[in-house]
Amino acid sequence: MNASMTTAIEVREQDRLAVSPTELPDDTPDRGSGRRLLANALRILAIDAVEAANSGHPGMPMGMADIAEALWRRHLRHNPTDPGWPDRDRFVLSNGHGSMLLYALLHLTGYDLPMEELRRFRQLGSRTPGHPEYGVTPGVETTTGPLGQGLANAIGMALAERLLGAEFNRPGHRIVDHRTFCFVGDGCLMEGISHEACSLAGTLGLEKLVVFYDDNGISIDGPVAGWFTDDTAQRFEAYGWRVIRRVDGHDAYALDAAIDEALTPCGKPTLICCRTVIGYGSPNRAGSAEAHGAPLGSAEVAATRAALGWTGPPFEIAEEVYAGWDARRRGAAAQADWQARFDSYADAHPQAAAEFLRRMRGDLPESFANSADAWIGAVTARAEAMATRKASQQAIGALTGLLPELLGGSGDLTGSTLTDWRGSGGRHLHYGVREFAMAAVMNGMALHGGFLPFGGTFLAFSDYARNALRLSALMGLRVVHVFTHDGIGLGEDGPTHQPVEHAASLRLIPNLDVWRPCDALETAVAWRMAVERSGGPTALLLSRQSLPAQGTGRAGTDRARDVAHGGYVLADDGRPDVVLIATGSEVSIAMEARLLLANRGIAARVISMPCCEVFDRQDPSWRRAVLPDGIPRLAVEAGATGLWRATVGLAGDVVGLDRYGESAPAADLYRHFGITGDAVADRAQRLCVPLS
Amino acid sequence: MNASMTTAIEVREQDRLAVSPTELPDDTPDRGSGRRLLANALRILAIDAVEAANSGHPGMPMGMADIAEALWRRHLRHNPTDPGWPDRDRFVLSNGHGSMLLYALLHLTGYDLPMEELRRFRQLGSRTPGHPEYGVTPGVETTTGPLGQGLANAIGMALAERLLGAEFNRPGHRIVDHRTFCFVGDGCLMEGISHEACSLAGTLGLEKLVVFYDDNGISIDGPVAGWFTDDTAQRFEAYGWRVIRRVDGHDAYALDAAIDEALTPCGKPTLICCRTVIGYGSPNRAGSAEAHGAPLGSAEVAATRAALGWTGPPFEIAEEVYAGWDARRRGAAAQADWQARFDSYADAHPQAAAEFLRRMRGDLPESFANSADAWIGAVTARAEAMATRKASQQAIGALTGLLPELLGGSGDLTGSTLTDWRGSGGRHLHYGVREFAMAAVMNGMALHGGFLPFGGTFLAFSDYARNALRLSALMGLRVVHVFTHDGIGLGEDGPTHQPVEHAASLRLIPNLDVWRPCDALETAVAWRMAVERSGGPTALLLSRQSLPAQGTGRAGTDRARDVAHGGYVLADDGRPDVVLIATGSEVSIAMEARLLLANRGIAARVISMPCCEVFDRQDPSWRRAVLPDGIPRLAVEAGATGLWRATVGLAGDVVGLDRYGESAPAADLYRHFGITGDAVADRAQRLCVPLS
Repeated sequence: MNASMTTAIEVREQDRLAVSPTELPDDTPDRGSGRRLLANALRILAIDAVEAANSGHPGMPMGMADIAEALWRRHLRHNPTDPGWPDRDRFVLSNGHGSMLLYALLHLTGYDLPMEELRRFRQLGSRTPGHPEYGVTPGVETTTGPLGQGLANAIGMALAERLLGAEFNRPGHRIVDHRTFCFVGDGCLMEGISHEACSLAGTLGLEKLVVFYDDNGISIDGPVAGWFTDDTAQRFEAYGWRVIRRVDGHDAYALDAAIDEALTPCGKPTLICCRTVIGYGSPNRAGSAEAHGAPLGSAEVAATRAALGWTGPPFEIAEEVYAGWDARRRGAAAQADWQARFDSYADAHPQAAAEFLRRMRGDLPESFANSADAWIGAVTARAEAMATRKASQQAIGALTGLLPELLGGSGDLTGSTLTDWRGSGGRHLHYGVREFAMAAVMNGMALHGGFLPFGGTFLAFSDYARNALRLSALMGLRVVHVFTHDGIGLGEDGPTHQPVEHAASLRLIPNLDVWRPCDALETAVAWRMAVERSGGPTALLLSRQSLPAQGTGRAGTDRARDVAHGGYVLADDGRPDVVLIATGSEVSIAMEARLLLANRGIAARVISMPCCEVFDRQDPSWRRAVLPDGIPRLAVEAGATGLWRATVGLAGDVVGLDRYGESAPAADLYRHFGITGDAVADRAQRLCVPLS
Repeated sequence: MNASMTTAIEVREQDRLAVSPTELPDDTPDRGSGRRLLANALRILAIDAVEAANSGHPGMPMGMADIAEALWRRHLRHNPTDPGWPDRDRFVLSNGHGSMLLYALLHLTGYDLPMEELRRFRQLGSRTPGHPEYGVTPGVETTTGPLGQGLANAIGMALAERLLGAEFNRPGHRIVDHRTFCFVGDGCLMEGISHEACSLAGTLGLEKLVVFYDDNGISIDGPVAGWFTDDTAQRFEAYGWRVIRRVDGHDAYALDAAIDEALTPCGKPTLICCRTVIGYGSPNRAGSAEAHGAPLGSAEVAATRAALGWTGPPFEIAEEVYAGWDARRRGAAAQADWQARFDSYADAHPQAAAEFLRRMRGDLPESFANSADAWIGAVTARAEAMATRKASQQAIGALTGLLPELLGGSGDLTGSTLTDWRGSGGRHLHYGVREFAMAAVMNGMALHGGFLPFGGTFLAFSDYARNALRLSALMGLRVVHVFTHDGIGLGEDGPTHQPVEHAASLRLIPNLDVWRPCDALETAVAWRMAVERSGGPTALLLSRQSLPAQGTGRAGTDRARDVAHGGYVLADDGRPDVVLIATGSEVSIAMEARLLLANRGIAARVISMPCCEVFDRQDPSWRRAVLPDGIPRLAVEAGATGLWRATVGLAGDVVGLDRYGESAPAADLYRHFGITGDAVADRAQRLCVPLS
């Protein structure tokens, strides 16, 4: 690293040679110094915005500005005036703390991100938040910041491109044919998810993926030599990647050559290792961790301006620099070319073209609602007892027939999570034992468009993927997590595999819908709600063990319709003395308790509450009708009780499990932990008849 | 892989050559076939126990039995009659689903694990749970099953050995001098944590760590060629490991040679890649994923017995086989040798010897309580305003002076989490951007003994480490997690970095104490409670921003003593109209609201509740005195409200945040989200004066 580090002094001398950008029309070869000037515009915007916010990360934008110039001005195929162009190249800034690099690029190339937004970097309501956020800023393809996940998102995008191309391209018609580019830093590559995702990408041979490694030898704590001594090139070769080593990340022509090489097909993803200087251009901070995450300060900003030969005031960019960066004309031409090709495709394959556009919009087929009604009706009529993971597999079988965008997978537990289905050929992925990457790759596929990904693992191991679930919820992505073996009912595998706190802890993640269905019908409705939900992800918590069917519901009601409210009255004789609220495998226990209580002269209502989030979104009238005020409440769920106490109130009670499970057959465990019909009936009775 | 696979037929012919184990006295060279017989005892015990339980994983024990025989009979230094011998070699079964291999080893070598326990494999209350559990079975060094974490635990143990040796060994006296051995499978190596931990181990050059890779080419979904094509040897060389390639995992002598090589010092950890056949010995399941996780069934068990030439009934082992395995004599001799060396060390360095024993017992120094009292008293008197992360750094400075076992570290956020302290030299680790490995390595160090590890990252990224926190709580380990930047108060970094659901979701993990202190004094008490807690881990949730000191408490009380109850009355004038319950950075907001309410003629009690778990463990009398029945309650915490509703009841209210944050300066965010003294006062007033 040290050998290639440009000292601050050298930086200064190089950059003082910068010439006017007027010498740089869009279509003629640039002189290196002119390209450096354009890169310096990124640097200056970044440091000025950080300075104005008095907060942010100047080091990475300054270090990667030349790479960004080479990629964005010479290779990236995008159209700033239509960030939604389906066949655009995808660009992911996995080291998301360098957000100002991306905002500067978007602004300069012509996206709808005016200078005023850059001035308001990191301020409330701006389109320039501290880390890039999907949905906030046009051109931002994914929310990054939690390290390593952007890289996995990019791999999901590249995978989606390949699968979508295989499905929709036709001889003589390549309507899906774009690249995915990703910037990563040392932090991303230290994170475990980088291993999971890049190992998978190597196995899959995602050759249209190009990753730029910002090899600056520095992370927050200082020179990485003390804690990160991987031979990263060798590591990626071990994954089956093409690695382009030791590229000078400040030499635009060397970068061009590396990118050209990366774009030649070889059946492998490519890593370009770029030697860079963090904070490049700052005389006193370059090459040091001090450049990473704090404003340079006005004196150093001035010194950097001088060193880079930059004379303009903050947030003012010369027209010539804008001209050098403007990508609108080239982008519009590229998109027009694609549109012409797409129109020709649509002429030849009108159905496929319409289907492609529907898939990219994320709309369900028009026929979906009717077909789903019929399917749910059939499930209601069958009323079969089975494990809800099995019911989920049947739902998958039904839904994948209706929705070709469904793309399944499992974290090496296909036969346990039952995410595969008959005739799935090519639509079910073996993610390997990589829960975190699976979730982040699913996010990437959902972001790319064209797919509705679902993936399975054991609920206990949702922990491994937790932050990717959070990001899917923050971004509002439609992905479905199939989490089976959802409690002590899994039995002998013991406490490491038995989720106790997981259902509750997933319910805490804002905008994640968590379903824990009690039988095949609830499972089917949950699946339907998950695929119909356009604003966020869904987690399905499913049993390993068989569960009885709870029938068609009360007379005069349509149970499937009730289930869709998230919580509903499953059994009631009117005028309940006590209300039992249960989910999943504990609903049948509550139903058993209800019978026992009836024999004791106590009328119990049983509420099945498969999805608290959906229930909470219902009209107050529905909620009050289901869960009346003034009647004692007892919740039953074989897991952490805390959140249920919020529902039952101080006067209510919860039958649950606030400790770890044990290794034993499931029936033994339910008895051992007192989660039985008898125990529930006793606890409910105590709520009705206060002890004297 | 295929080239080295022994077919089932070959297995059968090889094993029929097995000779009587009486030819195998402990101290003479074995014949290979005799060693195979001893290995077969492991296989047979495993398949019989799985058969009896009708549940479990036979494939791995059958595949790794020969490796286990080579390691445990020839190289592992342990004493079955004293599993707590401080200088024993550590053995970790990271692929913990193969638990029966370990139970068979412990039983046969002479640990207190009678055959009756093997018969009760996976039954309630047995010492042979489905996955190995620390504290349940003598000789089990850590709880494994969640893949990859055992490997990281082993790295923590090897690191603890090195650091403890550096601290306590003296010229001519090596009282800390043992190895760490670990078994891993493909699953462990696909998990991201394997990257984080092994990259770190390579950087640290942990040369006394030897990892055996069970390279059987199979994972649950089938042959790994479809999803895991890493060149693992090359990958580990990229980490700076010594790799011994292509060892026949069924050739005891080849394994001996590989282990001998692994034990020669080279400054690097060693990976031995062992080609094995999963389910080795089963004529119809060997080499197939079917052998992995289900009983073979009686017919296949019989066929396997025949193939291996094993004639004994289930759970009966010939005396000669016991004799071949019994490690008690050799183990006792090894420990006696160490004891003699330790006695000589104790003669020469009596203080160091006593300190070493204290550290390994996990006792605090006798003087600790008095010193801590004095320190807490000084913090109380100073009553300084500061960020609680800063207060934590001061606490660390004070405590590390009292407790040399404290070993700090940070996930590349040292300057932000403030886990380092003046004069820390060598006692603070740079874990790199590896949150999950950091937590699991800390678990390994705590398991090894001699250290009380703490490590820091941002609270939002506790997600990355979550399952390792869970395992530390399940095992009851004394580790301390320093989670700073604990809410929207971190400001501009935005929603990816702002924890919202994290405090609540950590509180859901059984046996994890979660502290969210409001000022320097509460932070000091939290730290003291964390290091004094012997039965489990602690998470400290700390602010980025400065917080006012809340003073010495009410007249007539010792606030520090109050804080130690987890929840206490911070301000009250008697006869409250409303109770405000707050934590951390929101306590000062509740105090502000209290003043506003007083001006409106409403008396508010403020309860500071830094640790709900400790409060819940108090006598009911304390809890009722702090939190009286019948008075309206309002909780204030800038995070998910659900769990607080359990405390305030259906009639109470919560001022919190059930959505993601935003990127903006902290003060703007508190206003934007309505978490201010005014807003709290208004909400509290509404509880007292019902709207007409």
